Amino acid sequence: MFSVGASPNTAARTSVSSLKKTKQNSRVKSGSRRNVVQTFAKKTPDGPRVCIAGVTGAVGQEFLRVLKQRDFPYSEMKMLASSRSAGKEVEFDGETYTTEELTETSFDNMDIALFSAGGSISKKFGPIAVEKGCYVVDNSSAFRMTEGVPLVIPEVNPEAMADMKIGSGKGGIIANPNCSTIIALMATTAIQRKVGIERMVVSTYQAASGAGAQAMAELEQQTRELVNDGEVKTKEIFPWGYAFNLFSHNAPMMDNGYNEEEMKMVKETKKIWNTDDISICATCIRVPVMRAHAESINLTLKNDLSEEEARKIISEFPGVSLIDDRANNRFPMPSDASDQDDCFVGRIRRDISQKGNKGLELFVCGDQIRKGAAQNAVQVAELLL
Amino acid sequence: MFSVGASPNTAARTSVSSLKKTKQNSRVKSGSRRNVVQTFAKKTPDGPRVCIAGVTGAVGQEFLRVLKQRDFPYSEMKMLASSRSAGKEVEFDGETYTTEELTETSFDNMDIALFSAGGSISKKFGPIAVEKGCYVVDNSSAFRMTEGVPLVIPEVNPEAMADMKIGSGKGGIIANPNCSTIIALMATTAIQRKVGIERMVVSTYQAASGAGAQAMAELEQQTRELVNDGEVKTKEIFPWGYAFNLFSHNAPMMDNGYNEEEMKMVKETKKIWNTDDISICATCIRVPVMRAHAESINLTLKNDLSEEEARKIISEFPGVSLIDDRANNRFPMPSDASDQDDCFVGRIRRDISQKGNKGLELFVCGDQIRKGAAQNAVQVAELLL
Repeated sequence: MFSVGASPNTAARTSVSSLKKTKQNSRVKSGSRRNVVQTFAKKTPDGPRVCIAGVTGAVGQEFLRVLKQRDFPYSEMKMLASSRSAGKEVEFDGETYTTEELTETSFDNMDIALFSAGGSISKKFGPIAVEKGCYVVDNSSAFRMTEGVPLVIPEVNPEAMADMKIGSGKGGIIANPNCSTIIALMATTAIQRKVGIERMVVSTYQAASGAGAQAMAELEQQTRELVNDGEVKTKEIFPWGYAFNLFSHNAPMMDNGYNEEEMKMVKETKKIWNTDDISICATCIRVPVMRAHAESINLTLKNDLSEEEARKIISEFPGVSLIDDRANNRFPMPSDASDQDDCFVGRIRRDISQKGNKGLELFVCGDQIRKGAAQNAVQVAELLL
Repeated sequence: MFSVGASPNTAARTSVSSLKKTKQNSRVKSGSRRNVVQTFAKKTPDGPRVCIAGVTGAVGQEFLRVLKQRDFPYSEMKMLASSRSAGKEVEFDGETYTTEELTETSFDNMDIALFSAGGSISKKFGPIAVEKGCYVVDNSSAFRMTEGVPLVIPEVNPEAMADMKIGSGKGGIIANPNCSTIIALMATTAIQRKVGIERMVVSTYQAASGAGAQAMAELEQQTRELVNDGEVKTKEIFPWGYAFNLFSHNAPMMDNGYNEEEMKMVKETKKIWNTDDISICATCIRVPVMRAHAESINLTLKNDLSEEEARKIISEFPGVSLIDDRANNRFPMPSDASDQDDCFVGRIRRDISQKGNKGLELFVCGDQIRKGAAQNAVQVAELLL
């Protein structure tokens, strides 16, 4: 069985060996891959005091794994959750913590708070934490478009939070972008920097994890019911079947016919790239995949860029690996990206529907829980040190 | 269990009732839906003599269901297959047929041959059948781009085969377009006719059925292994896991970095619409869905078209139903399209990345085996009568 929740694995595992083999055959490899080895986070008296709001959720649990893997230094760690989950025990770095209820006093004498407990919790407790001198890295959408709140992908725009450092005596909020925005911009920022992007048309293939651990569990349960009993019985999260099906993203629909997920990509990209001079159209679709998003991205460039140059600069971008092996028809898949730090880019090719070298097509996969959420937030926290 | 092969069902069934309910709430409904009722094909002395090449395959079996459902008239029916499958019994219209081996004499005294036995069989036996005065409706790609061979979607370009009629004393080949092309053009032809399309950017979400009954069986088997035993054991059709995964279409890769499936959409669209004056870029992706394709389509129009007008003309197009219910976030899903005649269009909206009313986005789902293959071929055969 592949577990969902505390340790959400996927079909990914089944093809890790094939991935490794194929990566060696890829035409271009990135030198930027971080070695994902289980280590111990650095508990040190000099480290910041860290608390996690929403620790029992899928992203909260991933925070812990990422903090460990990245040797994140800390002197104190506090696990926070809703009153419903308070009291649960959480293991971290060889110690057992009892989850405390998130209250106004939770942030007293804390340096960093990683939030992933939903927008309303962030809205209520984020400013309280800041008032107490704490830096909040918020995974919700609550403050993403708030003026003065940096919206940061560390590989893309670390300069947006350059004046934020622990020990400055001040606190502040840094927003984590939406998962599909992060993954799109990991694939395209090198191109934006090099030649400028005029227009971006994105179609997403989004995993269940973006809808939370319960959606992952429902997808798994429905699928089990269908293959074993021939019919879907469990429909609690979505009103339609998810197993062997796909559907337009469940985010609320706006007046212009785009859902919020799609508009996040439009607005957040402009803020992160600090430009209004780009046109974006997104179609966000949920597919029956567990935890890695994929995106088909069509670009209109401001200046010419050859396919070869595009491949080179994308591969050199930190946190990106190429899987672009035409000879073996081997390109990024969710199973490559699941449980991995990097985003994987492939299908890089000149867009034959645009003149000259002004159009480019590519395909990207990234882990929604990791780079799309927890890992990006921990990387942001690292910039605070 | 949901069966694969002779009767490839899907998760579709689980949401048919919800579909019906939602369709009543949809803002625009098509009056063109064909009533899918199981009837008996019309065996009549005046009917054509029909044979089916590749009757034991997924599309071959669907030919039989579609012929029945559409009351297709016939005076004689012959079931053909490879020597390996010859001798198998096939039920049709209350009679039992013994499958015969496909040979050069198979087409003697036949009027219509429906082919779905692969490109090499079509190439070898198609011209033989024509020589004997038989009309061949070929589901393979063998003759699609051959000059003089009409490539026909009956709702789109019936005029291409206007001079082909049974009783003319001549035979001929009519090619069935590729599934993803058919489904894209069912959604967009009304727009092409009304204002002209300058550029089309397509990202597909393609079902297992396009890779054949064995791929469907492998997807089901892998999924069962994964949810029941936690690991994928069966990998015979694709070298990577398909369950809870997706991947770039397995069609052969061309020198320009596009796979054949993508280039089919480019070339076939130009032939079907009888124009070179359109630019197309496609990204074809296989998703873990059984038998209905989905496509995200971004259009640049030659002339202005409002969202409302687009919705109206798409809904009026024969063989298309709208599911475009923003209030309930209810749009086309593979489970809507599976086992259905119509293609379902939704997410119709102005493209906010293009100026004025020159850009349009939409999402379409269609049954790959039915409208994408067998049904379209039988509709072509109807035009021969």
